[in-house]
Amino acid sequence: MACTAPKRVCIVGSGNWGSAIAKIVGSNALRQKHIDDRVTMYVYEEMINGKKLTEIINEQHENVKYLPGHKLPPNVVAVPDVVDAAKDADILIFVIPHQFIRTLCSTLLGKIKPTAIALSLIKGFDRAEGGGIDLISHIITRHLKIPCAVLMGANLANEVADEKFCETTIGCKDVRNGPLLRDIIQTDYFRVVVVDDEDTVEVCGALKNIVACGAGFVDGLGLGDNTKAAVIRLGLMEMVKFVDVFYPGGKLSTFFESCGVADLITTCYGGRNRKVSEAYVKTGKSIKELEDEMLNGQKLQGPFTAEEVNYMLKNRGMEDKFPLFTAIHRICTGQLRPAGFIDCIRNHPEHMNSNLDTYESGRSIRNSKL
Amino acid sequence: MACTAPKRVCIVGSGNWGSAIAKIVGSNALRQKHIDDRVTMYVYEEMINGKKLTEIINEQHENVKYLPGHKLPPNVVAVPDVVDAAKDADILIFVIPHQFIRTLCSTLLGKIKPTAIALSLIKGFDRAEGGGIDLISHIITRHLKIPCAVLMGANLANEVADEKFCETTIGCKDVRNGPLLRDIIQTDYFRVVVVDDEDTVEVCGALKNIVACGAGFVDGLGLGDNTKAAVIRLGLMEMVKFVDVFYPGGKLSTFFESCGVADLITTCYGGRNRKVSEAYVKTGKSIKELEDEMLNGQKLQGPFTAEEVNYMLKNRGMEDKFPLFTAIHRICTGQLRPAGFIDCIRNHPEHMNSNLDTYESGRSIRNSKL
Repeated sequence: MACTAPKRVCIVGSGNWGSAIAKIVGSNALRQKHIDDRVTMYVYEEMINGKKLTEIINEQHENVKYLPGHKLPPNVVAVPDVVDAAKDADILIFVIPHQFIRTLCSTLLGKIKPTAIALSLIKGFDRAEGGGIDLISHIITRHLKIPCAVLMGANLANEVADEKFCETTIGCKDVRNGPLLRDIIQTDYFRVVVVDDEDTVEVCGALKNIVACGAGFVDGLGLGDNTKAAVIRLGLMEMVKFVDVFYPGGKLSTFFESCGVADLITTCYGGRNRKVSEAYVKTGKSIKELEDEMLNGQKLQGPFTAEEVNYMLKNRGMEDKFPLFTAIHRICTGQLRPAGFIDCIRNHPEHMNSNLDTYESGRSIRNSKL
Repeated sequence: MACTAPKRVCIVGSGNWGSAIAKIVGSNALRQKHIDDRVTMYVYEEMINGKKLTEIINEQHENVKYLPGHKLPPNVVAVPDVVDAAKDADILIFVIPHQFIRTLCSTLLGKIKPTAIALSLIKGFDRAEGGGIDLISHIITRHLKIPCAVLMGANLANEVADEKFCETTIGCKDVRNGPLLRDIIQTDYFRVVVVDDEDTVEVCGALKNIVACGAGFVDGLGLGDNTKAAVIRLGLMEMVKFVDVFYPGGKLSTFFESCGVADLITTCYGGRNRKVSEAYVKTGKSIKELEDEMLNGQKLQGPFTAEEVNYMLKNRGMEDKFPLFTAIHRICTGQLRPAGFIDCIRNHPEHMNSNLDTYESGRSIRNSKL
């Protein structure tokens, strides 16, 4: 390690989450010899009170627009051209809105180090051609021809920037890269667990938003704590099953990480998907109307994910194996009244002999190698 | 099945939860031929406005004291003598406060059918001689010499009585008894999953209260959603580890059942342990004072469980492997200030190479036979 040049890091993106991560990565770079001090941050240029945002960041060391009130380490350098920012980097941390990823990749193609590795912090996914889910990390790998790990967890950006204790999960298939990525990200308040189960980590981040809609319906219908817990648990079981069917090889233990159960809980108790879904039941307005009213027209992730997931389930004739996901999709699209939600999950496959079939066949904790 | 006599059920207990279960068991008995219509319910006799509670229940079919507003099926018969109620039963459902179980067992010893089986709905546990945890189901089996299954889950009694949809978990080691117990308990709003992992189901119900204290401290300290999610997740991981160490053979999949993650969530967001622990941080009063003020002097389960668990951990020299449980115990007993809570879990074993050790060794979902 001592003989190799220190690794250069570029953060591609500078929103709320990107800036919170820049604060962490910048200070880790200063503390660690095997990471180059200079961390570049690609900033989409905009004018703030007549001054360029990159200039403000480089002079005041604060992203006054997206993370006001938090100083960035001075070694984090804002760069308005993404190729300039990324071209020398050994590690590219992607943290931009998911709809820009394809364009950004085509801009970067052939301009980055062929030995670079990527880490995606991008929430959500893209629609695959023809329908269904296309994972952002897969898009990055396909377009840039470099490996892409992912970072997901119960990580509200402002709380991370406030240095409040939390955990996160890095999914990184290549064991050789895991420790380096952890060194770049981990602090004493932002604790990292690395798992090799990349796709599961990313899929959890998408599917949780569907479950959060279900939790919101329960709140809107006034069904109480027991029912909400049941919906969250059944949602978790469908997440596990979905991974098993569409991303085979995924591990049960990954759902116990921050990206799994922790992020799911936070999303089902706080979060916009839960909130808008509650309002959907109570007001009778359409999701589109509520997006306009409550989210300034931004698209809600849950119903969109539910639609793409439903496309995948329908293709395989598996809607009845995922009654919760299916009911949530039907409710979001107006095919089913919210009041019919619970009737769809009363005879969930989880309650139908599933346990008696596998009775005594589950593995012991020790043999599950958690 | 057709040639054997219908099974007789006795519910030992008639509090809030016992009465809610009596409503379910009574109506299931009427609908199913292999269960005897007459369900006895042992009721500790007390006078209500000059009239015996058993008489009120048998005339008005309502437990006016512990579950007012809900009719019990008329085939549920209140019996003031526990031996009378239990002597002919094939299935004994125990649902009394845990501190009465030993006395009750000595009353019943030799007076029940030797072929009877038990189902315990009793939350909490007893202190073993010398210290540590003694599971209620183990006490029943030891004293009455009959097998004892358990039922636990995210089941607030009043919501169950209101017939709001929820799930529950039956832990039943003997596969031959599982289907019968499910038939007695399951309705279209109260969904049962049976697993063979009896002890884990019961231990989850005890340990969750420790974690809820941790969640309450986070709320009291104002640390936010990320931290709370991390504490709940780390608590879940210590629950898994505790079962692995002290009840070996327990299964990872059991923690995905209602008794595991669902009950844990509900307890950490609602529940008295969370609430009193939040007040403990905010007011600076002792747990004892808060029990007197907030719980009419009733003992809070979480701190008591934390103490017995700590006894077991200390005996094995394993306190440092369970830093969350240990810190919660120390805070409850005044050995550590609440503000020191997070520092105790910053370097949790979960964050210390655990993943890199077991990297690539976790089993795939399919191989975990969830």
